[in-house]
Formats: sequence, C-alpha cells, structure tokens
Amino acid sequence: MNEFALIERFFRRAPRDAAVRLGIGDDAAIVAPRPGYEIALSVDMLVEGRHFLAGTDPERLGHKALAVNLSDMAAMGATPRFALLAGALPASDAAWLDAFMRGFRALAERHATELVGGDTTRGPRNLCVTIVGEVPAGAAITRGGARPGDDVYVSGSLGDAALALAALDGRTTLDRDALDDARERLERPLPRVELGVRLRGVATAAIDVSDGLVGDLGHVIERSGAGAAIDVAALPTSRALAAKLHGSERALALQCALAGGDDYELCFCAPPDARATIARLASALVLPLTRIGAITTERALVVRDENGAPLRALPRGFDHFAP
Amino acid sequence: MNEFALIERFFRRAPRDAAVRLGIGDDAAIVAPRPGYEIALSVDMLVEGRHFLAGTDPERLGHKALAVNLSDMAAMGATPRFALLAGALPASDAAWLDAFMRGFRALAERHATELVGGDTTRGPRNLCVTIVGEVPAGAAITRGGARPGDDVYVSGSLGDAALALAALDGRTTLDRDALDDARERLERPLPRVELGVRLRGVATAAIDVSDGLVGDLGHVIERSGAGAAIDVAALPTSRALAAKLHGSERALALQCALAGGDDYELCFCAPPDARATIARLASALVLPLTRIGAITTERALVVRDENGAPLRALPRGFDHFAP
Repeated sequence: MNEFALIERFFRRAPRDAAVRLGIGDDAAIVAPRPGYEIALSVDMLVEGRHFLAGTDPERLGHKALAVNLSDMAAMGATPRFALLAGALPASDAAWLDAFMRGFRALAERHATELVGGDTTRGPRNLCVTIVGEVPAGAAITRGGARPGDDVYVSGSLGDAALALAALDGRTTLDRDALDDARERLERPLPRVELGVRLRGVATAAIDVSDGLVGDLGHVIERSGAGAAIDVAALPTSRALAAKLHGSERALALQCALAGGDDYELCFCAPPDARATIARLASALVLPLTRIGAITTERALVVRDENGAPLRALPRGFDHFAP
Repeated sequence: MNEFALIERFFRRAPRDAAVRLGIGDDAAIVAPRPGYEIALSVDMLVEGRHFLAGTDPERLGHKALAVNLSDMAAMGATPRFALLAGALPASDAAWLDAFMRGFRALAERHATELVGGDTTRGPRNLCVTIVGEVPAGAAITRGGARPGDDVYVSGSLGDAALALAALDGRTTLDRDALDDARERLERPLPRVELGVRLRGVATAAIDVSDGLVGDLGHVIERSGAGAAIDVAALPTSRALAAKLHGSERALALQCALAGGDDYELCFCAPPDARATIARLASALVLPLTRIGAITTERALVVRDENGAPLRALPRGFDHFAP
C-alpha cells in the first residue's frame, strides 16, 4: 500500500464537525475558530523504546498517543477540538495501523476531537500528535496563577502507572487483579478533559501529572512564584499502592506516588472558598478530587510524612535527557 | 543539560506577537485568532536517513524543517502565524541544537511566525513541525477548485533540488557553481509564502511541489475532477537542468523536472482572464510565474514533449511507502 492509499484507508474521513472547513487531503486543514474563544495548541512525541516498548498493543498505543495530548488540553481548561497525527513507521503495516487508528479514533470520538491532518513516513517508530483546543478568551488555566493559601488538589489516584511499570520490570510484584488495574492506568490513561473544562473560573492554576507530582507541582510553584506543602497521608492511591506505602516497599511506593509519570491526572490549585464547589464537581464527575496540601509563600516544595515531618530527599521525576 | 534546561536555553523566548497569549512553558500555548479568519493547520515530519542525511548541517536542517511547513501554508493562501516543534534527538547536543534553532528562527522571523510550543525527547533523530496559519474565512486556496480552461502555472524553477541529489549521489555531474546553486535549492528551499497570500481570489487551486510536479498536479486534477495538459518546453528550469534536458541526460533531466520532489515551488491554476494580474504579481515579487499548460476536461495528465507529442511514461513522484 502506498502513502496515498494509506491516507485514504486509515486517515481520511468525511468531517463531522461543521467547524472543519477542509479536513485531510489538502496541503493544510482549514478550521473555523469559535468567536470569543482563544486557541490552545500542544504537541507530544512518543518514541518507541522510550515512551512505549516495541510490541506494545497498537490499539492501546493509539489511545495513549491521543490521551497524553488531550490531557494537556485538560490542564489548560481547554476543550479539545482538532488533532493532527504525524507518524514514522518502519513499514507499511495495515494491521498495525488499523488497530492504532481504532484506539485513536475511539478516544477522539469520546471527546468530539476530529483528526484533520497528518503526515506519514517511513522511519523508526515515532508518533507525534498535535492537539488544537478552544477556551473562552482569558479563561485558560495556566501554571502560574497559584497564590499562597490556595489548596492543592489532585484528581483520581496517583502512582499506578509507575507501579505497573515497576511490576512489569520485576521491581515489585502485584496480584493479578492489581496488575491489570495498574496496567490499565499505564496503557489507557483517561485524560481529565471534562474536569479541566469545569475548573475554568474555579482553579487558579493547573498542570497534568505526566512527569510525576513533585516535578509537575514544582513547575506550578516556580511559575507562580510560590511554594507548596503537601502530605503523603493525603495522597490518593489505589489499594495496592497504599499497601506498599505502609509496608516494606515504602521507598518504591513513595517513588510511584510522588514521582511516577504517566498518571495524567490533574494537579490544580484553588482558594479555600472553592471547597464546596470542588466537592460538588467531584460528585458530578464521579471522580475523587483530593486536597493534598496548600500553596505557601516560601519558594520550596515540602512533602510531609504521616507524622508531619518533611521528607529529606524528594524522588525525582522523569527527564528525557537525564544523564 | 536536562530537558527543562534545554527548553529554557533553546526554545523559550518572550512572545513578540500580541496574539500569543501564552507561549512555551505551560501545558499548551494559547493564541488569539483574528476575527473573520479561519485557521490553517499542517504538520510535517522529517526523519534522519529518509528526508535528510545524518551529518546534514543542522542550521540548514532547521531552515528546511520550517520551510516545508511554511510551503504548505503558501499552498493554501494562508499567512503562517505560529509553529510547534517536536523533536527526538539521539543525545542532548547543545551545539547541534543551537545551530538548528538558528536556522529555524531566521526563517521564522522572516515570515513573522512564532514558535509557541514543542516537545523534546531522546530517540532516533526526527523533527516534527506543526504550523498554524490564518486565512480570511472562505479564502483558502484548495486543490479542488481547478476548472477546465484554467491555465496551469508554476513559480520559480523546477527540478534543481532533485538535480542536486543526483549530483551528490554520483548519478550526474555539475560544475561547481551549478552544484552550489542546486544544493541551495535542496537544502534551503524558499517557501513561496508571499505568493500564496497574493494568490487569494486569483488562483482557483494550488499545491506546493514537494513530491514532484506530475504527482502534485495529479492531486489537483483528481480533487478538481478534471485533467491537465502541460508542455515540457514550457517548464521553467535552471540553465544547468535545461542543458541536460537537451542533451544526453534527457531522461534524468525529465525525471528531475517532472518528478523531482523538494522544490517547494507553487503549482497553481487560474482562469485566462487572470493572466495580466499574474504577470504583475510576478514583477512585484521578482519571481517567475510560468504558464506551463492548461486544465482539461478529460481526467488525465498529459505531458507533451517539444514536438507536442505526449510522453508515453510519466516519471513517478516520491512515495515514502513505495516497495
């Protein structure tokens, strides 16, 4: 199958969204912005051997390649609208592409996000997704708006994606059900898009937890010119991870919860008078929104253990160019 | 240097364009669309060993990575505004990145295109640029608007990028000056952005010549439900290529002119009553705009030789997944 046949078979579809004036098949897509909205733009590149293993189920990879981008929209309070997919593949593999696009499209449809363009080429496997979202003018939730006294929250639970990796690497063991659950978090993260949109006007700052809580909350306080103090006891974790946190594998569990990447939960800040609003939001979305600490004036991140004592060394997040 | 230091050093700059509400450094960039405009979106992925050789001068590569995307905007009649750059690099190489970004930024500044986001990771070298442009609502020039009787034009000259490749591969020889000129076309293509913008309301269809004239004009006639007849004698070529076209290397020269990719000229169509307008445009831009044939009703592409006889076999364009 040649490049153009590939595009026709796997990528081109009649646009469903009237805002798509011109979809796949020209030199560029043309989309109409909604009056009064600003545009959110983000790109993420997934490399085989680095972000996913050779042999990863392509349907799950299709889901994840889009999910990590939708998560960036969620972290801005933006509504995802359009996506572009560029991919290098070692060969023209119809079965692989079919499964990849099944995963990609299922998630795209769930979030009314339309694939409007892309590029395919031969090369070491690499998937690069650009996402385009909309947010009412001035309403984007940045990393820089947190103020001392704000509460710090995280959605869902933290650390299971890293726990799954640790189990798959043989660094820990999990029973079958716990491994399945953790692996689902690693391979099929659910971007918190609806939460992000509902946090407009409520959250003062937000980031998605992709590199680990310590690193990502670190970006928020750096940009906000503030600090934060959070409590290990407050961290929302799965039952499997909680058990390790209170047992002999505490170091690993802390690493997962505080510095495990790939969770794609939102970490956000809001003033204390928003607590009731946030509690209602958690109910409405059937999604735990857990208060884990507060923004402070001193420019440092303090993580307190169950006795209130600061941890001396904080686990490090993921750095693609770390030595 | 870690990932965040890389971003600070090479990618982050204070936004110059007031439409950039939030540049590099958050989960997404936020840009403000211009009222009454639609948004053009395109992405191109360049893979080492496929689109460029290992050891390619990084400054030229930075130029080219953006140029191929600007060329897509030109082909739509869109004004490029914003870019996102995702890159996989085998290692954190400050000298390489510095040179790459020098080439990228010089071209970006020339076209008032602002880098607003990106992603960096380790992996086999791969550069993926997303470009975001603007075009007045309804004014985008698609591939599908050509009508029988329209003239077919190309800008600049065709085939020199392929000629340079042929010389570098040892398939032909060129004297020093001709090689330098051809190589400049291959490595530092000049996207016809200003031409694209000026063709709004004039051209009925346009495409950039990235895969070769035969293939790219083939897309135009397919989308337009028409055919085309063009003349080899009319093709604008450099003196070096013209000499080969009339000598013993005619087959190679035809291949370069008709199917050589990487020229990044525009091929466009316009009704005959636009000839005077297009001649004035050529003068104003100091850029040859050459009429090479016409759109026909019969759905086929006919290329006539210097005696008016149709070429029997048309050279093939580039296909990344060709066997």
